[in-house]
Amino acid sequence: MEIAGKHYRTVWLEGSTVQMINQPLLPHQFDIVDLVDVAATANAITTMIVRGAPAIGATGAYGMAQAVLLASPESWKAEVAAAARTLAATRPTAQDLFHGVDFVKRAIEGAQDLHSAQELAVAAARDLADDSAAACERIGEYGAELIEDGFRILTHCNAGWLACVDWGTALSPIYKAARSGKKVFVYVDETRPRCQGARLTAYELGGEQIPHAVIADNAAGYYMARGEIDMVIVGTDRTVRNGDVANKIGTYEKAVLAKRHGIPFYVAAPTTTLDFACATGADIPIEQRHEDEVLCMFGRDEEGKIRKVRIAPDNSPGYNPAFDVTPAELVTAIITERGVFKPEELSENDELLR
Amino acid sequence: MEIAGKHYRTVWLEGSTVQMINQPLLPHQFDIVDLVDVAATANAITTMIVRGAPAIGATGAYGMAQAVLLASPESWKAEVAAAARTLAATRPTAQDLFHGVDFVKRAIEGAQDLHSAQELAVAAARDLADDSAAACERIGEYGAELIEDGFRILTHCNAGWLACVDWGTALSPIYKAARSGKKVFVYVDETRPRCQGARLTAYELGGEQIPHAVIADNAAGYYMARGEIDMVIVGTDRTVRNGDVANKIGTYEKAVLAKRHGIPFYVAAPTTTLDFACATGADIPIEQRHEDEVLCMFGRDEEGKIRKVRIAPDNSPGYNPAFDVTPAELVTAIITERGVFKPEELSENDELLR
Repeated sequence: MEIAGKHYRTVWLEGSTVQMINQPLLPHQFDIVDLVDVAATANAITTMIVRGAPAIGATGAYGMAQAVLLASPESWKAEVAAAARTLAATRPTAQDLFHGVDFVKRAIEGAQDLHSAQELAVAAARDLADDSAAACERIGEYGAELIEDGFRILTHCNAGWLACVDWGTALSPIYKAARSGKKVFVYVDETRPRCQGARLTAYELGGEQIPHAVIADNAAGYYMARGEIDMVIVGTDRTVRNGDVANKIGTYEKAVLAKRHGIPFYVAAPTTTLDFACATGADIPIEQRHEDEVLCMFGRDEEGKIRKVRIAPDNSPGYNPAFDVTPAELVTAIITERGVFKPEELSENDELLR
Repeated sequence: MEIAGKHYRTVWLEGSTVQMINQPLLPHQFDIVDLVDVAATANAITTMIVRGAPAIGATGAYGMAQAVLLASPESWKAEVAAAARTLAATRPTAQDLFHGVDFVKRAIEGAQDLHSAQELAVAAARDLADDSAAACERIGEYGAELIEDGFRILTHCNAGWLACVDWGTALSPIYKAARSGKKVFVYVDETRPRCQGARLTAYELGGEQIPHAVIADNAAGYYMARGEIDMVIVGTDRTVRNGDVANKIGTYEKAVLAKRHGIPFYVAAPTTTLDFACATGADIPIEQRHEDEVLCMFGRDEEGKIRKVRIAPDNSPGYNPAFDVTPAELVTAIITERGVFKPEELSENDELLR
């Protein structure tokens, strides 16, 4: 998508350097980070310089390509295998990450020498990123059909283009609907603890000039009870065989509320998030992150400097589960790049796994 | 309750000065504010230097006493009537505020001269504050009977002693249970946008050495789904005839989740919050506060300074409803200083209104 008239993806490869938008600085500062080796790329995933399931999937793929490009001819196979382990261990919940790493790993399996492995790895990573961007655009086209003119839409976290290679998952249908002339209004859950809604979704929607308002996560139920929300669309980090989805903490709360109020609850899920090896959501590992994300907050002070401020008392601990599981019964439908499915229909369509 | 070994209430009268704990500075800085006239006292309510339904009720009463103490002999009745209007207009939702102002207004109705009005007003305000503290202690005794040893309790916002004159409403049962030797663990919703949970409830629980953890409001559903929450206790700003309650934004979300998971949901409500003139929660005016409370955050920076930082993009608006309504059907019982009632039983007990 465009920033100040120039098209950007969230992550890309320049020579053997992985480059990405530095997302913790947004919306206050736009900056590109250079990651010169696999350790730096892995660290960027762990520290959430890049986040969002499809975006970390592409980063995993580019990180693998980087590993092959930087490997020594003597021990490249072992080095690349180690890089795959490092990259896959950065975060536990999103399926796309494992998909991205595996995709490049499989692409170089038959390579006879390092040089051909390098060509295959770079091509595979670029294909994966291109396919991911194209899948998100198709999700937008399928999803836009579900959005009626005048709809007021709630979204949680950021499942926009910054969470993907381009376009977004949950926001892609909103962009497509708006560009086709439908009037929409978006309620943006701020999405504590990391405020990806207030920071990133609001930034994206502003860039596309789509009317929106940031609300506390606590206020979603208030607007639902008033009949002011027509649909909910969220992303997913992993979608399992029975149709359960893991997504940003708080997604489950919004799904329960949507069910109570009869509001359709859609999950936008590229097929790269599918993990049919998991039978139900109970099998999905849930990442527990550092308590400081809950006890503190980052923002821009009066002088324009980005600062960390502490909210809670020094002696109070925080618990910080990063994801929760929304059971299939609360999901109206899952929007993929291959069509819209009831959650229970997913596993009947093995071709979704390619 | 005690801070560093010294007993404090949240608000009191010293001569004709209303004094109170400066709550926006907590937990980082403990400071007492002097409010020398009614305009200052009213402003302290509006800007939430004092907040919490019973605490602003007592502030309303002390503000009325202050008005009478500072009135001129020539026009004291008109001045006091104007002060009552000013104080009652500071915030729209909490019933205690109107109760506090009216209580002193009624106490001086028969006064023949300013001097006797002053004596009556000061005595009435002190009685109201003493009664409020005693009511909260009794709520603690009734509520503690509902808490079993080992309970893991979720609370939202701050309905502790800082929200009251002393003891608290929702936290009072927890204090009584803990002091009687029951082991409890408290999940503290941070309660965006003003983070009264992370700042004030955590501070209070730390002071009482009660084990607790701050969680994002988004995480309450996660812990309920895991079976790690045994009960929910919250306060209320207004409790109406059919048993609906208005409380801090997000309370409704937690009530819906508690219902889904079969977790008892208790509301601690001094009878001063009762408003039987409102038939249902739909009649309660909901305060809409400034968008900056959602778009920005206050906290303590690395150098110890309390700062405001902006989270959201400069051009994104925020919506900020301060309260929501939880329907009676989601409320297990209402804990008052006169016993525990099913929400639908409240209006059958007219003596609750005194």
